[in-house]
Amino acid sequence: MSDDPGEAFVIRRLLAARPPLAVPPVDAGADDACVLEDGTVISSDALVEDVHFDARWSPADVGWRAVATNVSDLGAMGARPDWLTLALALPAPLDRAWVDGFAAGLGAALAAFRVRLVGGDTLRGPAVVASVTVGGRAARPVRRSGGRPGDQLWVTGRPGMAGLGFAHGPNPALLRPQPPVGLGVALAENGLVNAMMDISDGIARDLPRLCAASGVGAWVDPAALPPLEGLPPGVDPLPLQLGFGDDYELLVAAPPAHGRSIAALAAAHGTCATPVGRLTPDREVVLAGRPWPGAAFSHFSPPAAAPC
Amino acid sequence: MSDDPGEAFVIRRLLAARPPLAVPPVDAGADDACVLEDGTVISSDALVEDVHFDARWSPADVGWRAVATNVSDLGAMGARPDWLTLALALPAPLDRAWVDGFAAGLGAALAAFRVRLVGGDTLRGPAVVASVTVGGRAARPVRRSGGRPGDQLWVTGRPGMAGLGFAHGPNPALLRPQPPVGLGVALAENGLVNAMMDISDGIARDLPRLCAASGVGAWVDPAALPPLEGLPPGVDPLPLQLGFGDDYELLVAAPPAHGRSIAALAAAHGTCATPVGRLTPDREVVLAGRPWPGAAFSHFSPPAAAPC
Repeated sequence: MSDDPGEAFVIRRLLAARPPLAVPPVDAGADDACVLEDGTVISSDALVEDVHFDARWSPADVGWRAVATNVSDLGAMGARPDWLTLALALPAPLDRAWVDGFAAGLGAALAAFRVRLVGGDTLRGPAVVASVTVGGRAARPVRRSGGRPGDQLWVTGRPGMAGLGFAHGPNPALLRPQPPVGLGVALAENGLVNAMMDISDGIARDLPRLCAASGVGAWVDPAALPPLEGLPPGVDPLPLQLGFGDDYELLVAAPPAHGRSIAALAAAHGTCATPVGRLTPDREVVLAGRPWPGAAFSHFSPPAAAPC
Repeated sequence: MSDDPGEAFVIRRLLAARPPLAVPPVDAGADDACVLEDGTVISSDALVEDVHFDARWSPADVGWRAVATNVSDLGAMGARPDWLTLALALPAPLDRAWVDGFAAGLGAALAAFRVRLVGGDTLRGPAVVASVTVGGRAARPVRRSGGRPGDQLWVTGRPGMAGLGFAHGPNPALLRPQPPVGLGVALAENGLVNAMMDISDGIARDLPRLCAASGVGAWVDPAALPPLEGLPPGVDPLPLQLGFGDDYELLVAAPPAHGRSIAALAAAHGTCATPVGRLTPDREVVLAGRPWPGAAFSHFSPPAAAPC
């Protein structure tokens, strides 16, 4: 979800047109995915050619991405992905080699994230559009709204690596994102975290969303952010670390007492988790300890309504 | 799903790329929707501008259609729709009046079919692409594969009315399809039917699919097909009744002893059900009682693999 006003308009109108129903409404705006009454968690995300990917991505990378971006949303709720549907629009004439590559990447991601392709639709379209819906279960779903002042803020992995790949030559973080889905499920099921989300839009946009949902502010130490491997000399890492997104890592708010358990669980899942700041009572989201890299980072803009 | 060889290629490749998993595979090819172990039923369908709709459809009609075509797949399995996600790609610049109309039609259909919009994604695209996934529950799911020789074949409503609207001036059947979802659920829950599917691709394509899944043939009496209201003089109704599709009515195979109950249940749901033939042991799908309207109808072509 972007903060684009046109997109916010579309979402507002779609949500406003929902009819009143006898069944309780589902909050479709606040989290990475929606939680139904029975613990089913559902998320939808689509990829459009030349918007979400371009010629740098092989068709196999696009197939991988269609799965990875969606299971990331479930892991960020503490939900284990189970099934996935795909609606795939392809331009005519059909590029069969592209389809073969896409299917190979899709299949690799289905295996890696242990999710079943249970249905879909294929159709002609003016460009490649891959719309995925993924469903699963959360025993203890974690929302964005549970953060409390004093919580420690954590990020998994190395936010900014995808941005580095975008700006300075494609790398695996950009082309084959590896959202820590199993870690998200484990953090939730072990009751270690108060709030969680993925940072697919970048910390600069996503942290204010978590803060708004939780009714808190945040203080982030830029020096604590994990360094970017392969950063060219003279390049400021901060815009990549905070502003780019597409990392599909987790942003977590947790009681400080859980720090050792969180770090250990991350290591057990083959990744790292780094404390980068804390939640504050004052509702401001601030960077500390160095000059602001730009106006966009001094006070983050207010988050737009975003469906899951 | 069409029998287009390009589409069949895409589906084949996607299905072949699915990894072996420890969990049992879900049959994603044979029915209108997929049934998971816990009775959850899921279906995906997308609409593309200038492929599935054009300027004849108002934006509200497109919004209605995005819901109706999907809940039709669930009703055809005997499943009650519960939730729906929407990924909506829209060209830039954003046409706000179009979005308002789409949202109104979507909301009207959500209310009519009692289904909740629980999530989605909005994005820029080269044309309007509306990808919907719908989920629900079936207490007694009905598949295409349960038909037996001797079963009576029924259709609901008046197949061909959407085709009439397409060929001779838009009508409500074309612009605002009303799939008999409640009737499909009632037929299933009352154990009245052996096999069921919707005829979104037309009887000429869909009946052979039901027959192939059930390992049977069929005999259809064209004179028994419900007449088309408003048919212009001199127009042969049969190509519309059998070949066009987009009617989102039900095709049902049921023991002859259930005929009175089926007709009564259809009437109770505000529609009609008409016996049009029977299933046969010989695996041929034939029209009887009048000259064939064309080669396409003498022996229907074999069905393509189609995901749900």
